[in-house]
Amino acid sequence: MLKPRSVAIIGASRNPEKVGHVIFKNYVNAGYPGRLYLVNKSGEEIEGTQTYKSILDIKEGIDLAVIAIPAEYVPAAMEECGRAKVKTVVVVSGGFAEVGRQDLQDKMVGIAEKYHMPTLGPNCLGVMDPRSRVDTLFLPTYKLSRPSIGGVSFVAQSGAVGSTVLDMISSEGFGLSKFISYGNAAHIDEVDVLEYLLDDKETKVIILYIEGAKRGKELVKIARRISLVKPVIVLKGGKTFEGQQAAHSHTAALAGSYEAYLALFRQFGFTIANDLSELLHYAKIFSSEQQPSGPRIAIVTNGGGAGVLTADAISSSSFLKLGKFSTATEKTLRKSMPVLVNIRNPLDLAGDADYLRYKEALGAICGDGNIDMVVAIALFQTPGADSKLAAELIRIKGDSKKPMVVLSTGSDYTRMHKIMMESSGLPVYDSPAAASAALEALYRYSEYKKAKKQGKDPH
Amino acid sequence: MLKPRSVAIIGASRNPEKVGHVIFKNYVNAGYPGRLYLVNKSGEEIEGTQTYKSILDIKEGIDLAVIAIPAEYVPAAMEECGRAKVKTVVVVSGGFAEVGRQDLQDKMVGIAEKYHMPTLGPNCLGVMDPRSRVDTLFLPTYKLSRPSIGGVSFVAQSGAVGSTVLDMISSEGFGLSKFISYGNAAHIDEVDVLEYLLDDKETKVIILYIEGAKRGKELVKIARRISLVKPVIVLKGGKTFEGQQAAHSHTAALAGSYEAYLALFRQFGFTIANDLSELLHYAKIFSSEQQPSGPRIAIVTNGGGAGVLTADAISSSSFLKLGKFSTATEKTLRKSMPVLVNIRNPLDLAGDADYLRYKEALGAICGDGNIDMVVAIALFQTPGADSKLAAELIRIKGDSKKPMVVLSTGSDYTRMHKIMMESSGLPVYDSPAAASAALEALYRYSEYKKAKKQGKDPH
Repeated sequence: MLKPRSVAIIGASRNPEKVGHVIFKNYVNAGYPGRLYLVNKSGEEIEGTQTYKSILDIKEGIDLAVIAIPAEYVPAAMEECGRAKVKTVVVVSGGFAEVGRQDLQDKMVGIAEKYHMPTLGPNCLGVMDPRSRVDTLFLPTYKLSRPSIGGVSFVAQSGAVGSTVLDMISSEGFGLSKFISYGNAAHIDEVDVLEYLLDDKETKVIILYIEGAKRGKELVKIARRISLVKPVIVLKGGKTFEGQQAAHSHTAALAGSYEAYLALFRQFGFTIANDLSELLHYAKIFSSEQQPSGPRIAIVTNGGGAGVLTADAISSSSFLKLGKFSTATEKTLRKSMPVLVNIRNPLDLAGDADYLRYKEALGAICGDGNIDMVVAIALFQTPGADSKLAAELIRIKGDSKKPMVVLSTGSDYTRMHKIMMESSGLPVYDSPAAASAALEALYRYSEYKKAKKQGKDPH
Repeated sequence: MLKPRSVAIIGASRNPEKVGHVIFKNYVNAGYPGRLYLVNKSGEEIEGTQTYKSILDIKEGIDLAVIAIPAEYVPAAMEECGRAKVKTVVVVSGGFAEVGRQDLQDKMVGIAEKYHMPTLGPNCLGVMDPRSRVDTLFLPTYKLSRPSIGGVSFVAQSGAVGSTVLDMISSEGFGLSKFISYGNAAHIDEVDVLEYLLDDKETKVIILYIEGAKRGKELVKIARRISLVKPVIVLKGGKTFEGQQAAHSHTAALAGSYEAYLALFRQFGFTIANDLSELLHYAKIFSSEQQPSGPRIAIVTNGGGAGVLTADAISSSSFLKLGKFSTATEKTLRKSMPVLVNIRNPLDLAGDADYLRYKEALGAICGDGNIDMVVAIALFQTPGADSKLAAELIRIKGDSKKPMVVLSTGSDYTRMHKIMMESSGLPVYDSPAAASAALEALYRYSEYKKAKKQGKDPH
């Protein structure tokens, strides 16, 4: 489904407003390198491409059939897919259990099982993989920008949350491995998806939006295994009674007790996000694949106030603390810093600090055994901060074993440097709270894995 | 100082790296309509503009002198300003009390008092007012984008926090009234600034970053008066012990107990921000000048999952709750909505909802006496959401008396619509938590004012 050599779009259409047209165009525009077949019962040519009246008319093997036709015709189309020995199916069409047509959905599942044809959906956005250029999303790229290639896979029950987060990821410097929106989960569900991603070498980090799960026991099993291998970040919809009611009406999922889910996720080392933006904050730091040795943070800044706010955020965490520089580091800094720089943590390099001052300061700090992780605050509004500073921070992060994040807040000039640093694997945050939460998550996950390896239960 | 008819830049320079050059260029580029004089002891011409060796050589009255020369020469320059009957002074130069030269600072204050010359700074960014085009910031516009004209005034002790927040505001649809960075507060301090802004008609909302204050009693006095007139949002640096230590080293301010400050601010109806981004979230909703009649929220969405998360966020607030539609509203909605739309709050209009469906739904809800405020979730990734929807939401907000915010998350296409809506006074948030926090702040402030008017203490 994610690496198909051939794709058939059932319901391909000339009409640019139709889902089957948008999906076709996205394949063409993305430069999908495999064979693309269009199926349309009228047999009309679409933008110069031949169409087939039935998938049975295609003489070559089909790895993935994308079905985008009204619900009532889906079972017949799936039956044809089965007879044509199609390997996998994505049903993007809605109009099944979510609108009371459980009968149609059961019929669909029966056919999928009869032909051993893994089927995603119905009522879903389907899949996207920027490496293989598979993209079943029926949303044009001008509305939903596509992320670049990366290591984060994103699993979403809800199509709308899926598409909005995907669009948000496209503005971030880290990239996407797989996007899987499973909709009604009639056949393939979150357990299947997580089992796949567990073994997927291209997936370094998993983010998951879930409202409820039907196979609780199996979810526990896979949850237990997966976070020993790669970090999982989860956002659970249906936290409050009102949210649960809304979730029930949305996907007919039994939302279950939020606390029960949370306890389960925590027990298995998942990182809990409370909001869409937190999903991305955590995905960003985990995708940088940094390993902390402990919880002691050093802050280096070119803005005193930002240093104060970050010291507040770090010290408010129950897991992190500000480190104390070693005597050797203090000595080195006293020699290399201008006399007005107060040698303490947070280290305020002053508003005129240029990349050379950062280089000296971070060189000393990254060699300090009392420090485990670094927050480099770089306010690009100040006179000395420019692209040389961004390049220097990338170099320092590359040379140092200590996890490092950058805190930079602002508009265009800052955004330019953020993209520059993030595409080199250096995470950039725009608030002290976000930077602190990300470092805490990184530290807690590393402690979880350490405890598990030593056979201790961290809880 | 903020509406000067004439400005003199003392320390204007040919060298583009010098502060005195950047300030000069910013005045020129902003199209400052008053008279601009350059003072430079060499008397050299700068880019075709005449300079004066001393401010005493200028024959016309000067409303504002901006001093950007080394600290040791500042007292002499101020003495000349006093003799030239300059009305106000901004000293951007550093090198005073913050580096142990209390003597120089005391001298400066002595001269300011002798000549009754209100003086801002030293060690500050100074002031900016996009209406009068006064801009003493020594940061070029490519690094720090300047906000548009609006109703939010921003007061910052720290120059770095000031400049970074100013740059953030430039990406928002709401605009700036005044920016005042007061640095060492040697002469003019936060109490003076707040007293000025209390009476300033152009200022609708005040945001304040503060680390500590010397005139506690006076701060209490002005705090008590000001929030009866306009909303004040405050971010206090130095929350934790570590942050307080850092604050002390930063501005030599006695940070004082965070809890004591918080209690004070809360008592006087200030809105407390915990992070830089929260400052902007609150500024945005208050600058839209909406008045809630109560805490009951309606959510309308084109994405089920986003509706669930927003219901969670609203229900997690101790002050807000989801409203229940009246029987009449339910009846109207049942008639106008497609049969598959579940008539409940949150109202999920489904992924194919276009502006007409929003119009019908919000028309009914805005007329419902059981609903006080509205969150319109508009995910612009979905097929039916486009510029017509953004325009319709602007129209509805204009026609309705109920406060409304929009929740839209995504990249370019979403950002375009966000700017479109925000510049029409409709606040747009990118997370359920931010939207909920903003509505809570709006509601609490309105309750505070109501209780004060009725002579009841709300605490």
